[in-house]
Amino acid sequence: MSQTKFLLDESKMPTHWYNIAADLPVALPAVLHPGTMQPVGPDDLAPLFPMELILQEVSTEREIPIPEPVREVFKLWRPAPLFRAHRLEKALGTPAKIYYKYEGVSPAGSHKPNTAIPQAWYNAQAGIKKLTTETGAGQWGSSLSFAGSLFDISVQVFQVRVSYDQKPYRRALMETYGATCVASPSNLTNSGRAILAKDPHHPGSLGIAISEAVEIAATHDDTKYALGSVLNHVLLHQTIVGQEAMLQMEMAGDDPDVIVGCTGGGSNFAGIAFPFLGQQLRGGKKRRIVAVEPAACPSLTRGKYAYDFGDTAHLTPLTKMHTLGSTFTPPGFHAGGLRYHGMAPLVSHLKELDLIEATAYHQNTCFEAGVLFARAEGIVPAPEANHAVRGAINEALRCKAEGKSEVILFNLCGHGHFDMTAYQAYFAGKLTDQQYDEAELAMALSGLPSVPA
Amino acid sequence: MSQTKFLLDESKMPTHWYNIAADLPVALPAVLHPGTMQPVGPDDLAPLFPMELILQEVSTEREIPIPEPVREVFKLWRPAPLFRAHRLEKALGTPAKIYYKYEGVSPAGSHKPNTAIPQAWYNAQAGIKKLTTETGAGQWGSSLSFAGSLFDISVQVFQVRVSYDQKPYRRALMETYGATCVASPSNLTNSGRAILAKDPHHPGSLGIAISEAVEIAATHDDTKYALGSVLNHVLLHQTIVGQEAMLQMEMAGDDPDVIVGCTGGGSNFAGIAFPFLGQQLRGGKKRRIVAVEPAACPSLTRGKYAYDFGDTAHLTPLTKMHTLGSTFTPPGFHAGGLRYHGMAPLVSHLKELDLIEATAYHQNTCFEAGVLFARAEGIVPAPEANHAVRGAINEALRCKAEGKSEVILFNLCGHGHFDMTAYQAYFAGKLTDQQYDEAELAMALSGLPSVPA
Repeated sequence: MSQTKFLLDESKMPTHWYNIAADLPVALPAVLHPGTMQPVGPDDLAPLFPMELILQEVSTEREIPIPEPVREVFKLWRPAPLFRAHRLEKALGTPAKIYYKYEGVSPAGSHKPNTAIPQAWYNAQAGIKKLTTETGAGQWGSSLSFAGSLFDISVQVFQVRVSYDQKPYRRALMETYGATCVASPSNLTNSGRAILAKDPHHPGSLGIAISEAVEIAATHDDTKYALGSVLNHVLLHQTIVGQEAMLQMEMAGDDPDVIVGCTGGGSNFAGIAFPFLGQQLRGGKKRRIVAVEPAACPSLTRGKYAYDFGDTAHLTPLTKMHTLGSTFTPPGFHAGGLRYHGMAPLVSHLKELDLIEATAYHQNTCFEAGVLFARAEGIVPAPEANHAVRGAINEALRCKAEGKSEVILFNLCGHGHFDMTAYQAYFAGKLTDQQYDEAELAMALSGLPSVPA
Repeated sequence: MSQTKFLLDESKMPTHWYNIAADLPVALPAVLHPGTMQPVGPDDLAPLFPMELILQEVSTEREIPIPEPVREVFKLWRPAPLFRAHRLEKALGTPAKIYYKYEGVSPAGSHKPNTAIPQAWYNAQAGIKKLTTETGAGQWGSSLSFAGSLFDISVQVFQVRVSYDQKPYRRALMETYGATCVASPSNLTNSGRAILAKDPHHPGSLGIAISEAVEIAATHDDTKYALGSVLNHVLLHQTIVGQEAMLQMEMAGDDPDVIVGCTGGGSNFAGIAFPFLGQQLRGGKKRRIVAVEPAACPSLTRGKYAYDFGDTAHLTPLTKMHTLGSTFTPPGFHAGGLRYHGMAPLVSHLKELDLIEATAYHQNTCFEAGVLFARAEGIVPAPEANHAVRGAINEALRCKAEGKSEVILFNLCGHGHFDMTAYQAYFAGKLTDQQYDEAELAMALSGLPSVPA
């Protein structure tokens, strides 16, 4: 059997992030102020983010340097390994070659520290003492907690209620890193109290948790807000994943024909895909790039491409994206990190330009793929990552049917050690393929803000 | 800051295990048959183990080849990384250099697959279809479950009741790999039923779980038994850890003065220590080698060096080891993997020869060390590993007090992702430094079998 792992030396860790804004054939639509409907300027965002991150949000430079202290922290787990899935290929009987980039080696167990560390560092440089944030499954919350512990920033996490109850171990992890974690909707904010007044047992959503975290940051001078996905600078920070994968695919002597990632807000997908897509936009090889989302929260495949709020209480600016409506509450399925009503503006834009594909699966078929993967490759994927595993396996089965030996690369964005209750439910046959209510989706979409053309 | 991670290429993975029996200044005392009190022969062990493993158990060859299919599986995570703990050193303000070998990168999250994979492979080669085993915290049980899934062997795990209740996620992991897991004492065996008849709420112990697993294997032709620690061949399989660490310390340009490992049955400690100790026994550098055990189950520091049974129901042969007595039931502290009444005969023998040191800590100080480590280095250690972290930190603080810049190497044998309830209890102040009952210990020691001199 040939090589299984492709490891890069610390000396080969990328020194710059790749900014796809530099290579877009059509510029990204402007972000609008919901009051004036005019494009927002840096000052509008200053209550929430330090200026360095705001400048990254709007930058069109192709390469943005990764600060040295951030790279020093990355050395705790980066460069992350790339694996050839020999055993999975054999189990599937496919002529395809399957590779996966594994981001579960980070201390928090997912790709999220790739942006948590620089966000915490830029905030620390700006003298910020406290960060608020939202989290779904808890991968982002625990990552920012870890980052806060390294740069002496206190972190307050609003965790979506349904995940808070499903995944108590993630909360314990946040506390181990010294952070505090609150179930959202909470009584700590106006946004949370308004929701609880209508429904004291509301399961929460990322949109609501964002409102709560933003509200605290906007109303406290020493506090800023950090987001784990969606925004341009967050996707930018994840491009270290694809840049490393590119070097590792060279080591393996292969070049991917298909790249697969799961999408909630879009950051791990962007991380693996954008560096390869950038090559293509600059005249390089054309590859199929496939986003896999949950069928119960299908922003890319069922959402409308329109201006919408990023949160439920409408405290954020308006961005053009694929959205299910900011008041849409997805069913409480187990891939909590994918339960977001919108999609990253950059990912949405690329979908509109037909530069990427999108597909959606329900959770049982994703867990089936995850168990097959675990028994072949050993690693138990997170429920979110199971969507990418399902997507990659389906591509490999297509290759088998067509007799093609394509090269498939997917991002295994995190492990499932904190999600074993979901696996228990799957084995017990208690996992249902929950579907959203069509009437609720129509209602949420009808409430989209009207924006002058 | 200098390099953080020291990675070895797959091509540098050791091709042989190191067998310390070849270099012992005094041979290990014989294993005795409890009926005849005569040394056991290979045939006595044949109902429980395949012949290849029995031959390894008694071998005095210095190098034993690692089968190629086993090395292929190891490539899923091996060679495992060695880290320099720059941030921990800084947090402690110590002039010592701290290195740790990290075995938590394995699919099951600990060093245990290093022996689970070869044990399953040798059994598969011998045509065995089912393996039984015991597990404490579940790290061994999930590792053997993983190994079984790769070689088409069905695995039945008897998990110590107190851990079964404390750590439900480990059970889910075993099930993900396709194994079955039963709380021990159980109603499935005579050994289990005898215990339950006396106390239906018995918390279990590794000694009892071993009895149950051995009983099933001994009474079924197609079934054999696998042990996760204690035995010579298990310690042998773990020496890949220390052999890799030796190459990685060379890469780092340092040579350890002190080597620290936690000890339950002794296998991860042996894994990191024996290759270095072997160098010394062949005339190389003398190093301090420190075993750290739980003060609530202190076989090396409080046990008697005597012949004893490996299990509670007295189904195993007699081995000479440090023992608290085979009927001793340790308190239900959280480092379930260290709750064993005995110590590996090889480790015990080296202790008697004054070639290693031993020390014991209660669990709160170990969790304190683990949290300090997590906030500095990111990785959350398993409760068992926290004992090694405590030991290494105390050596580093001694170096600080003495103004010495010694090189400390410890084995971080596993992560704590499945042990977060223990961390929750620690943060809530609910973790007590449980102590065993002195009268119970005296009683257990008084029951040691009498062996003719």
